[in-house]
Amino acid sequence: MDFVSIITQKRDGKPLTKGQISWMIDKYTKGSIPDYQMSAFLMAVYFNGMTKEEVMLLTRAMINSGKTVDLSGLGTPLVDKHSTGGVGDKISLILAPLVAGAGVSVPMMSGRGLGHTGGTLDKLEAIPGLRTNLTIDKFRDEIKKIGFAMTGQTGQLVPADKKMYALRDVTATVPSIPLICASIISKKKAEGAKGLVLDVKMGSGAFLKSDDKTRKLAEALVRLGDMSGMHTIALLTEMNEPLGFTVGNWLETKESILALKGQGPDDVMEVTTALGGLMLVLGKKAKSIEQGKEQILKVLESGKGFELFREMVIIQGGDVSFVDDPESYALPKYARVITAGRKGFISAEDALKIGIAAGHLGAGRIKVTDRIDPGAGIVLHKKIGDQVEEGGKLATLYTSNKILLNEAEAILADAWKIEDKIIEKKSKVIDLIDIEGKISL
Amino acid sequence: MDFVSIITQKRDGKPLTKGQISWMIDKYTKGSIPDYQMSAFLMAVYFNGMTKEEVMLLTRAMINSGKTVDLSGLGTPLVDKHSTGGVGDKISLILAPLVAGAGVSVPMMSGRGLGHTGGTLDKLEAIPGLRTNLTIDKFRDEIKKIGFAMTGQTGQLVPADKKMYALRDVTATVPSIPLICASIISKKKAEGAKGLVLDVKMGSGAFLKSDDKTRKLAEALVRLGDMSGMHTIALLTEMNEPLGFTVGNWLETKESILALKGQGPDDVMEVTTALGGLMLVLGKKAKSIEQGKEQILKVLESGKGFELFREMVIIQGGDVSFVDDPESYALPKYARVITAGRKGFISAEDALKIGIAAGHLGAGRIKVTDRIDPGAGIVLHKKIGDQVEEGGKLATLYTSNKILLNEAEAILADAWKIEDKIIEKKSKVIDLIDIEGKISL
Repeated sequence: MDFVSIITQKRDGKPLTKGQISWMIDKYTKGSIPDYQMSAFLMAVYFNGMTKEEVMLLTRAMINSGKTVDLSGLGTPLVDKHSTGGVGDKISLILAPLVAGAGVSVPMMSGRGLGHTGGTLDKLEAIPGLRTNLTIDKFRDEIKKIGFAMTGQTGQLVPADKKMYALRDVTATVPSIPLICASIISKKKAEGAKGLVLDVKMGSGAFLKSDDKTRKLAEALVRLGDMSGMHTIALLTEMNEPLGFTVGNWLETKESILALKGQGPDDVMEVTTALGGLMLVLGKKAKSIEQGKEQILKVLESGKGFELFREMVIIQGGDVSFVDDPESYALPKYARVITAGRKGFISAEDALKIGIAAGHLGAGRIKVTDRIDPGAGIVLHKKIGDQVEEGGKLATLYTSNKILLNEAEAILADAWKIEDKIIEKKSKVIDLIDIEGKISL
Repeated sequence: MDFVSIITQKRDGKPLTKGQISWMIDKYTKGSIPDYQMSAFLMAVYFNGMTKEEVMLLTRAMINSGKTVDLSGLGTPLVDKHSTGGVGDKISLILAPLVAGAGVSVPMMSGRGLGHTGGTLDKLEAIPGLRTNLTIDKFRDEIKKIGFAMTGQTGQLVPADKKMYALRDVTATVPSIPLICASIISKKKAEGAKGLVLDVKMGSGAFLKSDDKTRKLAEALVRLGDMSGMHTIALLTEMNEPLGFTVGNWLETKESILALKGQGPDDVMEVTTALGGLMLVLGKKAKSIEQGKEQILKVLESGKGFELFREMVIIQGGDVSFVDDPESYALPKYARVITAGRKGFISAEDALKIGIAAGHLGAGRIKVTDRIDPGAGIVLHKKIGDQVEEGGKLATLYTSNKILLNEAEAILADAWKIEDKIIEKKSKVIDLIDIEGKISL
């Protein structure tokens, strides 16, 4: 087989065969197809797409490129969650221990932040000492012990995706629905999940800007997940303003710890309980999303969710004193308050701009190799629908590098809109997609 | 500047600025933009194209990536020819000495064969000892002495193209009109040509299969050449059957030597005199293509063309005994005759299949690193319109590797069509494109 003719075939809009796809992924993983050929192929996929059949074959080939985790011996249901990425999206940290507490195991392999969105691993690592590079054995042991574990993707699992994702990131081939689907579903399948709930973000702070494309992505993900043998559901949630009141790694971890102590913001808790309720339905611990939500709230109220999070931090080597006393964490040296130019009701709080500004302050990275300032970020004092006085506080920026304050403030120039009329607070949950048709909101 | 955002811009169909294009070519030539990013960019160009302005800026940036040859001190007109590549296309070997003999200097930098089409350098190198890697100084000296020189592209000229072409070849991004145009015109401009005649092939053996695309390519090339300060004309010529009676490196060189001795096939001489006539018009040595043709024929009849070719071989280190006595060249060990299955008139002699078969016999290469068998190839005994008896000879295959005979014969299975009705021989010259509108057929 010859890779130039495979690129040509995709370039000319002709579907690839099973043999071609598995050959290509095998050779690429082993290094005998060079990056410069794969990137041309990926750009051709960006333009010409892939059939459902091709995406399924690609996903299988990617799974076969490495090891898979066998969690079947645990005897518990195994359901994971994946978010397409938003601003202030700390849901995983709160959700995983709550779902585990309700009897559904969560084998969670997460990613790092890139661009304007944060990553679960960076948030966890804001706790000094916490390791997110668990071996497959440690990952399995932790799930067995406390019902969940939170780690980065090991190179042993889906190595094809690891290589391909790094390449896509530097060749403008990330926003391709078939490639996104294969990347996400191959990882979830390989990590051992039997069910999957997707949190697909819509709005200014979402990964895809068009609602139409976002729905297509959600449907494609659900279809591929189902075809791969994981019952998969997508929850479409709104991402026009950040989730909760914090954006930045430690700030969000702290907000998550407080949420597990019962002090979570309304929007964060709405999305968490909806996703958690669905995970319990997939894990057959609840018959409806409402029943599932109730159980999640019980675990929260009992304090068991907080206890499990605390245990995870200890097992993964983190300094648990910051979990017990989040106020003891030293915030960065420099802070600046952003105030309202007029009084009124907040009608917009731009998640994209706030995400970019937080990244600039040190919470994110532009390149994969950039270092994170764990304490940097933004605390919001108001949410959409809240009332503010002229000169009232909208947000506080935190950073260890003073000169970044002006840049971040400039990025935020038009992030807020304030109007005279009352603005209604809306539900964050927009829709649910379940191709099997068994579950509804 | 950041190359990912340039790739994104092209991917999204937005034109690039002058600053972006020159930055990109500069960084790529210097190696600080990696191949895996450039290939994604090239595939995005394949899909989204480039504006006329962008192609002009790309061509300039590519010329600026290296040295240029200054031939202005020679005091002669400087006109080159470029063919988009065909099967049996040995025109350059015959044309350059004839045009030089008529007083127009030809600074010819040629390429190697790839795919089913041959390359001038490979044909020349079939003459033992002949060097095609002249330095810029030797190239200039030779043109000064005999009016032409035939060499490969030195790495000092348009290094950006050298790198980019090699990458395009392995990433299925060769057939992109903007990239083809920038590649050809940048090289011709850098080698010192002041006028350029393009031989744009149409038909089954041409590089582009659609006549419509071929015309667009011809127009784009002529426009870009004119914009670059070289008066440029395209001659559209037919490439359904191979040119002449030979396909293969030595076989074509021998046919060219015989043509310079006045024994050239009709089609070869028709195309050669038309191109040569146009070159003399561009060099202001003739007022019309007809006048130019007459002068070319005079040089041919006087034997001056042959003498100049002979001198070129001597200057470039070739064994001139094979020019003086072409029959002394040892043909490959194995030969096979292909015969006609029925009697009649030949209505098709597929240039593409014959080109591929000749390549298989050892005349061409699949990869840039493949070695050529200089004597391998195909001698045709009939041309379209010729009459043949049942069992009459159509072609003889030559190779040094016996097992290749069966493969080549299989490729040639349907290469000929024979009909009962008389088939008219047609002119190979289809049309002429001169945007300045001064020259016509």
